Amino acid sequence: MTDPELANSHRDLRRDLHQHPEPAWCEFYTTSRLVDELEQRDIDDLLYGSAIHAADSRRNVPDEATLAEWRERAREAGAREDVLDTVGDGFTGAVAVVERGDGPTVALRVDIDALPITEADADDHDPAAAGFRSTNEGYMHACGHDAHATIGLGVLDAVLDSEFAGTFKLIFQPAEETVSGGKPLAESGVLDDVDSLLALHIGLDHPSGEVVAGIDEFLAVRQFEATFAGDSAHAGARPEDGDNAVQAMAAAVQNLYGIPRNSAGGTRVNAGRVGGGTASNIVPEAAFIEGEVRGETTELMEYMWERAERVLDGAAAMHDCEVETDRLGDAPSAHSDAAIVDVVDRVAHHTDGVDTVVEHDSLGGSEDATYLMQRVQDHGGLAAYVGVGTDHPGGHHTPTFDVAERDIAVGIELMAGVVHAVADAEPVS
Amino acid sequence: MTDPELANSHRDLRRDLHQHPEPAWCEFYTTSRLVDELEQRDIDDLLYGSAIHAADSRRNVPDEATLAEWRERAREAGAREDVLDTVGDGFTGAVAVVERGDGPTVALRVDIDALPITEADADDHDPAAAGFRSTNEGYMHACGHDAHATIGLGVLDAVLDSEFAGTFKLIFQPAEETVSGGKPLAESGVLDDVDSLLALHIGLDHPSGEVVAGIDEFLAVRQFEATFAGDSAHAGARPEDGDNAVQAMAAAVQNLYGIPRNSAGGTRVNAGRVGGGTASNIVPEAAFIEGEVRGETTELMEYMWERAERVLDGAAAMHDCEVETDRLGDAPSAHSDAAIVDVVDRVAHHTDGVDTVVEHDSLGGSEDATYLMQRVQDHGGLAAYVGVGTDHPGGHHTPTFDVAERDIAVGIELMAGVVHAVADAEPVS
Amino acid sequence: MTDPELANSHRDLRRDLHQHPEPAWCEFYTTSRLVDELEQRDIDDLLYGSAIHAADSRRNVPDEATLAEWRERAREAGAREDVLDTVGDGFTGAVAVVERGDGPTVALRVDIDALPITEADADDHDPAAAGFRSTNEGYMHACGHDAHATIGLGVLDAVLDSEFAGTFKLIFQPAEETVSGGKPLAESGVLDDVDSLLALHIGLDHPSGEVVAGIDEFLAVRQFEATFAGDSAHAGARPEDGDNAVQAMAAAVQNLYGIPRNSAGGTRVNAGRVGGGTASNIVPEAAFIEGEVRGETTELMEYMWERAERVLDGAAAMHDCEVETDRLGDAPSAHSDAAIVDVVDRVAHHTDGVDTVVEHDSLGGSEDATYLMQRVQDHGGLAAYVGVGTDHPGGHHTPTFDVAERDIAVGIELMAGVVHAVADAEPVS
Amino acid sequence: MTDPELANSHRDLRRDLHQHPEPAWCEFYTTSRLVDELEQRDIDDLLYGSAIHAADSRRNVPDEATLAEWRERAREAGAREDVLDTVGDGFTGAVAVVERGDGPTVALRVDIDALPITEADADDHDPAAAGFRSTNEGYMHACGHDAHATIGLGVLDAVLDSEFAGTFKLIFQPAEETVSGGKPLAESGVLDDVDSLLALHIGLDHPSGEVVAGIDEFLAVRQFEATFAGDSAHAGARPEDGDNAVQAMAAAVQNLYGIPRNSAGGTRVNAGRVGGGTASNIVPEAAFIEGEVRGETTELMEYMWERAERVLDGAAAMHDCEVETDRLGDAPSAHSDAAIVDVVDRVAHHTDGVDTVVEHDSLGGSEDATYLMQRVQDHGGLAAYVGVGTDHPGGHHTPTFDVAERDIAVGIELMAGVVHAVADAEPVS
Repeated sequence: MTDPELANSHRDLRRDLHQHPEPAWCEFYTTSRLVDELEQRDIDDLLYGSAIHAADSRRNVPDEATLAEWRERAREAGAREDVLDTVGDGFTGAVAVVERGDGPTVALRVDIDALPITEADADDHDPAAAGFRSTNEGYMHACGHDAHATIGLGVLDAVLDSEFAGTFKLIFQPAEETVSGGKPLAESGVLDDVDSLLALHIGLDHPSGEVVAGIDEFLAVRQFEATFAGDSAHAGARPEDGDNAVQAMAAAVQNLYGIPRNSAGGTRVNAGRVGGGTASNIVPEAAFIEGEVRGETTELMEYMWERAERVLDGAAAMHDCEVETDRLGDAPSAHSDAAIVDVVDRVAHHTDGVDTVVEHDSLGGSEDATYLMQRVQDHGGLAAYVGVGTDHPGGHHTPTFDVAERDIAVGIELMAGVVHAVADAEPVS
Repeated sequence: MTDPELANSHRDLRRDLHQHPEPAWCEFYTTSRLVDELEQRDIDDLLYGSAIHAADSRRNVPDEATLAEWRERAREAGAREDVLDTVGDGFTGAVAVVERGDGPTVALRVDIDALPITEADADDHDPAAAGFRSTNEGYMHACGHDAHATIGLGVLDAVLDSEFAGTFKLIFQPAEETVSGGKPLAESGVLDDVDSLLALHIGLDHPSGEVVAGIDEFLAVRQFEATFAGDSAHAGARPEDGDNAVQAMAAAVQNLYGIPRNSAGGTRVNAGRVGGGTASNIVPEAAFIEGEVRGETTELMEYMWERAERVLDGAAAMHDCEVETDRLGDAPSAHSDAAIVDVVDRVAHHTDGVDTVVEHDSLGGSEDATYLMQRVQDHGGLAAYVGVGTDHPGGHHTPTFDVAERDIAVGIELMAGVVHAVADAEPVS
Repeated sequence: MTDPELANSHRDLRRDLHQHPEPAWCEFYTTSRLVDELEQRDIDDLLYGSAIHAADSRRNVPDEATLAEWRERAREAGAREDVLDTVGDGFTGAVAVVERGDGPTVALRVDIDALPITEADADDHDPAAAGFRSTNEGYMHACGHDAHATIGLGVLDAVLDSEFAGTFKLIFQPAEETVSGGKPLAESGVLDDVDSLLALHIGLDHPSGEVVAGIDEFLAVRQFEATFAGDSAHAGARPEDGDNAVQAMAAAVQNLYGIPRNSAGGTRVNAGRVGGGTASNIVPEAAFIEGEVRGETTELMEYMWERAERVLDGAAAMHDCEVETDRLGDAPSAHSDAAIVDVVDRVAHHTDGVDTVVEHDSLGGSEDATYLMQRVQDHGGLAAYVGVGTDHPGGHHTPTFDVAERDIAVGIELMAGVVHAVADAEPVS
Repeated sequence: MTDPELANSHRDLRRDLHQHPEPAWCEFYTTSRLVDELEQRDIDDLLYGSAIHAADSRRNVPDEATLAEWRERAREAGAREDVLDTVGDGFTGAVAVVERGDGPTVALRVDIDALPITEADADDHDPAAAGFRSTNEGYMHACGHDAHATIGLGVLDAVLDSEFAGTFKLIFQPAEETVSGGKPLAESGVLDDVDSLLALHIGLDHPSGEVVAGIDEFLAVRQFEATFAGDSAHAGARPEDGDNAVQAMAAAVQNLYGIPRNSAGGTRVNAGRVGGGTASNIVPEAAFIEGEVRGETTELMEYMWERAERVLDGAAAMHDCEVETDRLGDAPSAHSDAAIVDVVDRVAHHTDGVDTVVEHDSLGGSEDATYLMQRVQDHGGLAAYVGVGTDHPGGHHTPTFDVAERDIAVGIELMAGVVHAVADAEPVS
């Protein structure tokens, strides 16, 4: 087995992105840098800004002050003003199109956002040792999206440098971590002509040299914020004047977790962040729950959602409070099509650096690539979600997460091979 | 101090009543026996049946099967058919009127119902030793209402045997233990011409020889039954099909006790009897709470009631259940008027067998004589609630409760004295 | 397809058992009748009473008064005194052994207990119309165990009437409905020499003519009763003196349902029957939960059990109550071995009256045949659980449940064929 | 009635303090300014720093970073370095002693801390209009302690300017708002020789011209923080690995409010500020409750505390979490002695600017002057808490609270008169 190596230009890109981690909908520097790269290549179309998002379907877009702060950071890091003008209101990401004559349309989707985690600064953390640790203190590429974006561009380069016949679309999706970017991108229609969609993730506890041909069992998810409003009162002098929002919230928490199990499959519920009240001697007038429900199918998630809304409403009513429940991000369940998974399986067996191919694995969590997969499948296309192993020192979403650059090269070779094979196979009749 | 002694006829009455304890609204034998006694006396009017009750205000009347069972028991014990015809649908109790020329109208209210408690059968329990233990197994005069009824008749005899000038009304009230008899009696109007109302209780942890001139601090109370209806399901195969009435009930219990304290005074809440479900493997479709709320004032009780209804409704809604909340018995708060309390105080100091007079004491619990007191006070009259001590071996509402018959005689002399004194004092201008 | 018909003697047995439904551990008449039948046959061994039960592993055995009541009913129905002497303390069921030379040991397990359900009495309910409705009012064979027992005896008759070579064990298991009989039977060791164990269920929403070759996905289950003990107090006068067992129970209910889901598979929890308290004005001193936990694997059930115990203990501690949690019945998960399932599949295709063979189905619920299956599998044998369809008018565990007698005949032919085929195939190497 | 007017020097002091509001234990500028004032006067002793506090009894002292920040602010505002050195670690406040020959020891206690409230900046808010609005943005003298401190110094000036015979102690107490300063001051012993202690509050919804001779019914209070520690887990992938601190907290909240009412008097409980968790998709590993319990007596507060600790422990145990419950500030109940109240009543009737004297009023809330009152009473002295009315435009603890300076002058005259009268009356035999 030859040892794959990452091209210098790809390595530089990966490290630059790693140094500039940006949260969901604020990937301003990232988008600018990617647009720059794309414009230097022989592509046929380049879309970004509101052209690639159904604006009303975006969720979790930060407030204007936060957007402005990140625009300013991007500007200081060297982002282009013209790109900022186009994407600066929370329309991040980009789509590149390469048309090479007759043949199917194959798309590759990669995600680009980072996480609010402070990156490790120890010598045994490679990005710190090698000088490309996060410069946005408190934020970090702790889930490998810097590698994903690099793989995307690497595959594009491979396609451009080949005899590929057909159309290739490269999708840089923002806001995956808040499961918010998939839906507006899907609903924009940019994928509606796609015959085969590929998505991928690096790591996921699979070691270097291992590929998962098809990942399945995405849990459908819906995140929400419930805000309880009651009336405050002095807890000593006038407790009877209060309508206690914390009591309402606590009753909701107790009963959210008590939503019945479902014999049709796994479900989840979590009140992941809660709070309320201002001082020990004041009956709390406000409280909130940031939570989520999930299901092994979209129907199961909707079952949980319906019950959760009922619990939230009833809990508020018990204590004469109002509750407003806002849906934040969500993602449906989805499946990888066997026809593509078979292709991945076959290609992986001939890819340098791959020594093990796992046919199937389950994700366990959620991911809004499913919106894109479902959209393509609903339009008659096929889709698959591929895993590329890497020996990551820390777990995903932890300060010591890292990706072996060699495995980025493997990812590029693998996915480029799959793009070609899928196009040749013309899997859609 | 002369030792008071109970007249033979009064002792016989008391023991006969003690042998025939009957629950609320089923005091059929008791009423028949009292009517018999009253008809043998020189009274001017005798009312019983629907004439003394606002029928729609009655609560907690047992179902027809239960009424029929107790009518049959009464019949077997020798109750008169004509009385049963009049009171047998749950219109128990009686009112006797004595008119003796000009003078104020003075009323004495005593209660007559018993409790679902199995009476002690040991040799040291006097009624058992002396052969007048309950013959209605499972029921018992465990709160002294047999003594109260006897004191009532004793006072009537004293009035008839005296120079009393005015009108005397003797009220035998049913259904005190379920706080259900006071309201319909009050609303019937039989007390609307009363200038001074006296009510009394024996025992209450006061020893023989002690009198409480005025009892106050009755907690207003409302009892209720909440019935939750959901949908059952197999707990293993189809938990998602259930709407769990026990979850709704449990949420209600948790939050009922959490109703805020009130700075205006003491409140209470209790989910005293609860239940639900049928088997460990079935999602429960039904559940119930028998409970109560109280307050140091009627307003405080209503505050608790409003909050309780809200909790019950919200808890049901959380679990997609229906809840029906029925008000059972209730009673307002009330106070003893100082003008009468002063008279009681004065008379008690000259009553044989009384060695201590306590001016005031608080009841702590509830009692629906308050409906009658409030009615009289609302019509411009005065009212007081008097305590007559007795060394009771067991606590109220326990199987060994008993009353010293000597203290029944004290009660008769005391209350007869008060009736005269109140009439002479003409406390109402 | 020939139309199978039930032999007269088998029909009579089935109807006699149907007329005498008996609850778990009280199958006295049933056992006596079966012993009678078995003694009339050419069998080699007959075991019943404490010989077939690990006495200490029995759960849910009714109290002596209940046992005595059912012994008396059995006696009146004609049960044999000698059998009652042997099984009357809750050692019901029987094991018959037929030894026919060399060959594997094949066992068939059928269950025999009934349910506390009042049987329908309408003309369209066959047992009522044909005169063999339950004579134990309030109890009913509403899950087909009368048919199971009859199939067992029918298979025995077929084996006796054949060239079967090997050992055949027929197990009549008591107390399945309370998942209590499987464990003591398994632990008695009577199955430890079994090479192949068959168990079966009739109905389960499969129509007449359909057979399920292998039923799987038994949920492991554990039933429990938690008893909370606090202190009572007068809810108006002394609420602070109470330690409220109903508050503890309600807190437990709320948090039992909130035990986290498990990513390893489905779990269940149910507080199926709860209660507490005595009267609306008394702080409750006692409360209980009859509940259960389940899991798709035994480990998942144990996960739920560990969490449930913690919740119960913590809830009691919160309100200064004691809780005692008794394990009632339980059953592990189990699986049907493919080797036997294949045999069933093959035999079923050649059985009169069978027109559809379903290879696999999931039970959804629980059943303690799994204790026996697991025991046999742990000792190196194989096991399978077979479904025999029937058009049952009402659902299992409902008053109109019934079994077509024709399908009992199908069950006999099918299982007899499987017993022979399994013995011939010598599936254990 | 003469219209009282505040002396210029006192007005300047009040306004300077109002401009420099400092939170509990951070009253550095305030203490420095007061020490400055006291040193300019003919007093016999001046104590501050650790001399006046039992160090281990201090609660709620901010962390060093916060202390450092407020020391720096004080320094910038002109505080004296020597004073900062002495009080800068959270030993704020001061005690001045005047000895004027034989006579009783009379003490006056005033409090000096401010609140984390942003002061109003409108023209109709006098401090804003007159240019002495808070310069510590986000903090405000919203409860009149600037007036209290000024009254204290005013009374000292009156005593110094009089024929007062005895010892006068002026106590500037820090950290009243967090009920933390009273206890360490009391336990330092500086009050142990006091015969008569006076404390006062301005406002409290009493209008200008009204004095309350004796305030009573302080609710005993204890504040606490409970910190729950569990284990986090991915809510989608591994919910079973979590020990959910938010579930524990919610269960605690539900059951804290459900602590039984107490027939011995009013109680309170509040979970005033709660929180937990980090993100919607993480099972929360940490949560907290900042709360309090109160009682009309110290015993009732302890009853609530005992029950609250039990609830917190049980709730944590239910969810396999740890909980650490820290007592923050507390204060006992206390009463005003009639002997001093009578003196206040008498003096008030002859004080300029006072037109109404209310004999008694209840506080409704809590205040840790009670620690000082109790200490004095335990040592054989007497104590009273006096109310001085003022027309305050906004409520206590709101951004528009203000005090009429005329009423500060009334307070000085009243309290100076009381100090003299108490000394003359020699109320302690």
